[in-house]
Formats: sequence, structure tokens, C-alpha cells
Amino acid sequence: MNPDIQTWIDRLRSGDPRALARAISTVENRAPGWSDLLKALFPHTGKARVIGLTGAPGSGKSTLVDQLAKHYRKANQTVGIIAVDPTSPYTGGAILGDRIRMQDHYSDPGIYIRSMATRGALGGLARATADAATVLDASGRDLIMIETVGVGQDEVDIVRLADVTIVILVPGMGDDVQTIKAGIMEIADVFVINKSDREGAERVEREIRAMQSLATRNDHWTPPIVKTVASEGVGTAELAEAIAGYEAYLKKENLVLKKNVENWQERLVEMLRDAMLEKARAHMDGGSLERYAAEIAEHKRDPYSLVEEIVGGAERDAF
Amino acid sequence: MNPDIQTWIDRLRSGDPRALARAISTVENRAPGWSDLLKALFPHTGKARVIGLTGAPGSGKSTLVDQLAKHYRKANQTVGIIAVDPTSPYTGGAILGDRIRMQDHYSDPGIYIRSMATRGALGGLARATADAATVLDASGRDLIMIETVGVGQDEVDIVRLADVTIVILVPGMGDDVQTIKAGIMEIADVFVINKSDREGAERVEREIRAMQSLATRNDHWTPPIVKTVASEGVGTAELAEAIAGYEAYLKKENLVLKKNVENWQERLVEMLRDAMLEKARAHMDGGSLERYAAEIAEHKRDPYSLVEEIVGGAERDAF
Repeated sequence: MNPDIQTWIDRLRSGDPRALARAISTVENRAPGWSDLLKALFPHTGKARVIGLTGAPGSGKSTLVDQLAKHYRKANQTVGIIAVDPTSPYTGGAILGDRIRMQDHYSDPGIYIRSMATRGALGGLARATADAATVLDASGRDLIMIETVGVGQDEVDIVRLADVTIVILVPGMGDDVQTIKAGIMEIADVFVINKSDREGAERVEREIRAMQSLATRNDHWTPPIVKTVASEGVGTAELAEAIAGYEAYLKKENLVLKKNVENWQERLVEMLRDAMLEKARAHMDGGSLERYAAEIAEHKRDPYSLVEEIVGGAERDAF
Repeated sequence: MNPDIQTWIDRLRSGDPRALARAISTVENRAPGWSDLLKALFPHTGKARVIGLTGAPGSGKSTLVDQLAKHYRKANQTVGIIAVDPTSPYTGGAILGDRIRMQDHYSDPGIYIRSMATRGALGGLARATADAATVLDASGRDLIMIETVGVGQDEVDIVRLADVTIVILVPGMGDDVQTIKAGIMEIADVFVINKSDREGAERVEREIRAMQSLATRNDHWTPPIVKTVASEGVGTAELAEAIAGYEAYLKKENLVLKKNVENWQERLVEMLRDAMLEKARAHMDGGSLERYAAEIAEHKRDPYSLVEEIVGGAERDAF
């Protein structure tokens, strides 16, 4: 291995926040060396607990994550937070939110916060988040929290790769169980009803229960519902207990490895898809894609035959 | 070409709704023959106007689409509607909504409505919707409307492939311009403020205007804002006019082909990605993926080297 990478990794694992930040940036941007870095870090991973949290904008997600972080810090656990923020570039929400939160935790090196904003690349955010979590894991953080706004497939992909997935609902916000993004309710290992002092909390709870009565999970776990008022710290300890409860259940039922294998199957498919696409692109000489698109737009050829030709060509020529 | 496919296409192009439904199902599910069918249909495409509409749940999207459909029917245009419904399987919203709407238009063969529910496959919904639109286009429909809930990247991908994209906002629903999914505001060619008789309509309009003042579009078009009350048919004619206005602008500025080429570039990348992944999967003998995932979960190998090996192997062996 490159001796520079070894020095870098040693620093990162000794807790140097700059080495950590540089490593996350490297894998996020696929800067030179990203692949070697991840390969070298992988043997050091698998120790951190990874918790995914998702909820609509305004559900108090960040406040809840901060409360949990404080809770775990009291137990002397080190915490890494990845805040995935799909806020429009118009508002700059990611950067602003980051600064406000950094002030709070500035004095505590035991909490590391990193924001990730939506990039243009399809699927790119899920990949970047997974890789950043790998780096944090290798750096020796005890606990990693990944928070995302639960609005799209991207977000589902991001949080379902966590060991424990928490879905945050709030009463009366129009994000009723009926209208919430498909796939979000199904991935919850623990439900949180935040701002539970508001009217309608019981209704949300009833709706979750009704939904749960309709379907059985493969692992036969019934996700508990924890009521919190994150802004006042109410329910944080109960939530941490519920998280630990699910982890204990997975262990007891011998499901930890099984869940891990399933997660890796999905990640492998995504990684292969990306890698193969890069190959296909390389196979097309510069400018080909645009030329092909123009021929299709002008109806000079059909896209379905073209894709078969390119993939077939890649096959024949070994790219 | 297979003579059966030719008979099928003849029927479809003569307006037979069963031939149309069967063709959409075939491409949606990638049933045998889907690729030959699309290849044979492609030369008949490119004539329909494709309009994409997106808005949050409860924004009155379907009602607006129905009003537009009636408007275009009065001008003797045939209409195809693809309603992409990411409602959770728990609620069965897609099917229910379809039935209710079908009753309304049952007597008019000039309107064809098709629902598409979210599937598990990543990116699969955008692909299936694009292919269904291709079939509708080839069937001779004058106008195709694609409606989706504007909540995620999937939806952005779906509607941005339309010729004209409409983003529907409503006052006071918590989907303020500030909190709406990134990428949604940017893709609007026309804004609709529906339920504009509610308090707060002016505020939404001001917010859109403020956002517009921050950025210039590549095509230098300023998306108009149309106020509607779809439940009462208010503003439908104005919306149709705004749509026609953008189409006329694209024509006048010679941007029609350019936009088409850009759209096809993006679709080609997606199609290639999927096709290459299928090749990669075929390259791995049955069960390999799970075995590899298990080896990674047990930390016996790292996923980054593995992906390089598989892609490299595909290269060496020509798959």
C-alpha cells in the first residue's frame, strides 16, 4: 500500500478530525485515491452501530439527532453524524444548518457532524453517504447516525442500509400515514412520533398500529412507537432504549449477519451498476453519447437497438 | 419483424384500447417481446405533445389533469394520461384512484388513463413511465399527460423527460417554496398555484418570483405562474394557454430538437446503466451475488476490490 495512505489512515484512526474530513471529502468526490483509501479502510469497519433516521421537513429530525447524540455522549460513546440534506441549492440549507449545529457541539470532539447536499448524479447521494459512513466506522466512532429527509427513493436507499432505521412522524403536518412516501413506513424498525404534545399524536399512533396489523415483517419484529418532544429532550432515553431493543432482538434471533448480507447484496448491485456504466461510457468515444442522442431525437435510429449494440460491442471487444 | 407484432401494432395504432393496454403492460413488466415491440413502435413516435405535472399529495394534481383533459377533448385532441402513484402498497391508492377517475371518463374513448404504482426496482418507475409514454405516443394520442407526486428524485426524473413540465403548488400546505424537494422548482416550465382561492396564494407567488430572480435558465424562459381552482375549473384555459406559450417559445427559439437531444442523452445513460448491470449479473453465476455479499459481511473480502474484479473479469472474458 501507498505509505502516504497508511499515514493518513493512522491519523484518521487516532481521531484526527482533519484526516477524517479529508477522507470523507475524498470518497465523496471520488478524488484520486478514493478507491485505494476505501479498500484500506474496509478491514477496520464493522464495529460502529449505524442508525438511520428519516422524517419530513419540519419533523424535528435534527433536534432529535442532537438529543440522541448528547445521550450517547453521556455514556462516553463517540458519535458521527451524517446529515443528508436535499435542500434546494437556492436556499443553501445544508451549509446554514451545519453552522448552527456546529456551534452547539463545537467544544466536543466526541461528536463529528458532516452535511451532504444532494448532487445531480442519480443514486450518487446514497453511494456517497454509504462511503462516508464506512470512513466514520473505520475512524473508530462508536455510533453513526445518518439523517435524511424522507421524501424520495434516494432517502429510502440511504437509511435502509443502516443497522436500525427510525421513521419520524409528527401530528397534523399533512404527512399522515396515508400520504407518506411509499417505502418509508415499511423500512421503520422504530417509529418516533415527535412533537407528541401536539394534538393528533394518538391518531398518528392509531394509524401506525392499523398499518402494522396489515402486514408481517420477515423478521417478525413489531416496530415500537416512541413518543418524543425533542425540543425539550422528552423521550430521548426511551428512544435509545427502543433502538437497543431492536439490536438485542437481531442478536437473539441470529439475524445480524443475515441483515448485513442482504444490505451488502443491494449495495453490490448499485456499485456494479455504476462501475459497469463507467465502462460503457469509456467504450463510447468522446462525444458519442451526444451524437447518438441527436440521431435518436431526429428518429434516425431507435434507442433500444442502439443500447443493445453498445452493450454487445462492449461484450465483443471486451470494451 | 414478427408478423404477430405487426398485427398488434396495427391494432394499437387504429385505436384499439385493449391492444394499447397489453402493449403498456408488456413494456412495463418487460414481458417477452418488450424490446422488439418498442423497436417497432419507435418510428411512430415523436408526434404527441408530452406534458409532465408534479405536485405534493393533496395539491389537486389529478383534478387539474382531468380538467386539462376535458379542455383538450373539446378541441378534439385525444389524450393519454399516465398517473404515477408512489402510494404505499398498504393503501392501494393507485388502484382506487384509477377506478374513481375511470368512471368519469368511461364513456369517452378519447381519454385513456393508466396508473403506475411504485415498484421496488430503483429507477424502474422512470424507465417504465418513459416506455409507456412511447407506446401512447405511437398509438397516435395527440397529447400525453404524465402526473407524479413531486416528492423524490424518481419523480424529477419522470417529469423532466416531458416536453413541458408543470409544477403545482398550493397555499399553506407546508410545501413552501423553501421546503419543497430540491430539483422540483428548477424543472418547472410553468408554475400552477392551485386552490388559489385560499389564503396565502400571493405569498406563494412572491416566493416563486423571488426564486426566479436568483437564477437564469439556460433557455432564458421565465416560467409563467397560473392561478387555478381546479375543482371549479377556474384557470384551466389559462393553463393550456401557458403550456402552448412555452411550446411556441421553444419553436421560435429553435430549441425543440436541442431539448429532445438533451432528454435522450439522459435516457440513454439510464438505459445503458440498466443494460450493463444485466450483463454484469449474467456474468456472475447464480447465487454468486449472495455469496459475495456474505463474504463482505463477514469481512473476508472488501467490496471495492470485488467490484473491480467483476468488472475487470467482464472485460477480460467479454462477459
